Amino acid sequence: PKKFKSKFMNALKSVKKIGKDDPRRIIHSLKVGVALTVVSLFYYSRPLYNGFGVAGIWAVLTVVVVFEFTVGATLSKSLNRGCATLVAGALGVGGHHLATAFGERREAIVLGTLVFMLAAVATFLRFVPKIKARYDYGMVVFILTFCLVTVSGYRVEELVELAHQRLSTIIIGAAACMLISIFVCPVWAGQDLHNLVASNIEKLANYLEGFQGEYFHSSEDKEKSKSLLQGYKSVLNSKAIEESLANFARWEPGHGGFSLGHPWMQYLKIGVLARECAYKIETLNTYLNPEIQTCLEFKCKIQEACTKMCSESNKALKAISSSMKTMTHPSAAKSHLENSKSAIEELKLVLEVISLEDVELLAIIPVATVAAILEEITISVE
Amino acid sequence: PKKFKSKFMNALKSVKKIGKDDPRRIIHSLKVGVALTVVSLFYYSRPLYNGFGVAGIWAVLTVVVVFEFTVGATLSKSLNRGCATLVAGALGVGGHHLATAFGERREAIVLGTLVFMLAAVATFLRFVPKIKARYDYGMVVFILTFCLVTVSGYRVEELVELAHQRLSTIIIGAAACMLISIFVCPVWAGQDLHNLVASNIEKLANYLEGFQGEYFHSSEDKEKSKSLLQGYKSVLNSKAIEESLANFARWEPGHGGFSLGHPWMQYLKIGVLARECAYKIETLNTYLNPEIQTCLEFKCKIQEACTKMCSESNKALKAISSSMKTMTHPSAAKSHLENSKSAIEELKLVLEVISLEDVELLAIIPVATVAAILEEITISVE
Repeated sequence: PKKFKSKFMNALKSVKKIGKDDPRRIIHSLKVGVALTVVSLFYYSRPLYNGFGVAGIWAVLTVVVVFEFTVGATLSKSLNRGCATLVAGALGVGGHHLATAFGERREAIVLGTLVFMLAAVATFLRFVPKIKARYDYGMVVFILTFCLVTVSGYRVEELVELAHQRLSTIIIGAAACMLISIFVCPVWAGQDLHNLVASNIEKLANYLEGFQGEYFHSSEDKEKSKSLLQGYKSVLNSKAIEESLANFARWEPGHGGFSLGHPWMQYLKIGVLARECAYKIETLNTYLNPEIQTCLEFKCKIQEACTKMCSESNKALKAISSSMKTMTHPSAAKSHLENSKSAIEELKLVLEVISLEDVELLAIIPVATVAAILEEITISVE
Repeated sequence: PKKFKSKFMNALKSVKKIGKDDPRRIIHSLKVGVALTVVSLFYYSRPLYNGFGVAGIWAVLTVVVVFEFTVGATLSKSLNRGCATLVAGALGVGGHHLATAFGERREAIVLGTLVFMLAAVATFLRFVPKIKARYDYGMVVFILTFCLVTVSGYRVEELVELAHQRLSTIIIGAAACMLISIFVCPVWAGQDLHNLVASNIEKLANYLEGFQGEYFHSSEDKEKSKSLLQGYKSVLNSKAIEESLANFARWEPGHGGFSLGHPWMQYLKIGVLARECAYKIETLNTYLNPEIQTCLEFKCKIQEACTKMCSESNKALKAISSSMKTMTHPSAAKSHLENSKSAIEELKLVLEVISLEDVELLAIIPVATVAAILEEITISVE
């Protein structure tokens, strides 16, 4: 029992940490609770029940399935669900009519064929990357509704009435989700994407600062520079989350400083550049290994130019990141970039004069170069 | 209309390509079609309908939602759905009893509180990474079923009867999915993961082969070595897919050469090493840029050692990859690795003798080193 207790306490701690890391998660949970309770009690109370019958249950179902963490995801799922239900419902009624036209005997065969064909085609279309990214949920609902309508049509004679009821309850559920997610402490996927990309660039800048301190021992605060070196790791694998956020951001209306047609796809391009930079940093990071022997004399010679490159690239990246956050033109970054470019020239001059014995530091050059490219792109975006 | 036609033809082409790239996708679509048709017609035919009533619709719903591409994903969703329905159903009946004990007036308040608390807690738990990875779908179904049971319990008096009906129809639907996905042309997530990791290592090996040809112009076939250089890009972003496959693989029974308790998590470790290697290769790749001026004299001097390093690492990686595919001990890789290590020593000797002017090639050393680490790990796994 003691072991169990300590395990339980550990689990509790990690759950607490999840809430602390991002308090919006707690708010989101409460929002889902409110939406579900409202819709449930709506269904539970007599008046609505008399209006919609058992179909009211679909409003509850919709809320549970559709309510997501970000506004974009909720909107995307709601609209997908609504449109797919409408189209599939219409097609289902058509299919049912077609089947009855064939006479009672062949009805089952025709219905089976229709269901089979539609399910197979729709399932296959889910493999198309573009459809998978944006309409995956819609396709599932489409297959579902079509099957339910064609097959149950045989039982319930008032097919159109049923379809109408179901659609209106789904609209009630989806509307509740959309309103609550947009107006009560909204979590915008676009804002998240913006912050994520900006903070990723900042992490790269931090790394360069930490690297400078570690490698040339120029910083007094050992602990601080060590902590700066860790951040970039999360940039390496940021692709999946950036892409899903960008996909959701497209569904969102204008919010904060972003208009409806904000170029979200540009963020993915910056993300790609940031990752390329992070890959280079990953390589650079191996040279911090104390087991690699370095020639101190040589290190001293190139120290000045390299330190300048590091600190100027660092400042340029930080300027880009902060200008992204404030949505202004990164004019400060430009001068830092000029400085870092001139530092590269300086280093080249130094290298021409002396003969090299320890050359690991050249790996810094690509980092500076990438910073330059990154800068150019960012200017074009903001 | 012409523009539309060409667009349509393009879309058709890309859809065809998706089917050609992986014919299992077509088979999967047909499998879903069959499963859905069977369950639909089961529901459509009188005998089942009389037994289960309208609840039969839940079998159709289950098939649509649960049937996934890989066996592991289907099993995980089926079991999640089944267990969550069972637990939430029991809790729901309990909640309903509790609410009725409070008298008719306060019933709505008690029910609302229960739904709110459960929905909020369950939604928050979905943010816990471990639960998100394995039981996310189960949590959704749990909230859903609990709401449906507690709220609808007020209407339908035969609550237990209803819960029983629903559970058995879900079991029918889930069983149909599981049987078809396991016994008809199964797509094993574990097998896919195994192949993916092995082919990723092979891609790295191919890159080294191509790099050798490009950089030292040692290969006659320009086209071939260029094509070899592209493959590694997909390794960089393989993290998300590897993790989801490993998660699904855990749900799968033994198949092919894999037993039930196969160490799937080891594949993730190999994947991390392969990605680290790919990051280094990404850095290396920038040196293929023809704009970077190189000193031919120096290049000649180090050519021999570097070519050896490249080809031996390449052979070692290929040996690891093929021994993974055949599930044998990578004994051949060991000797290649010894050779590549001795090549590193040779290069160091050469570098000590001559003064360096063009030093980009040193970037190869980490690649060889990573190959060495990779090798050691792989031996320990297989």
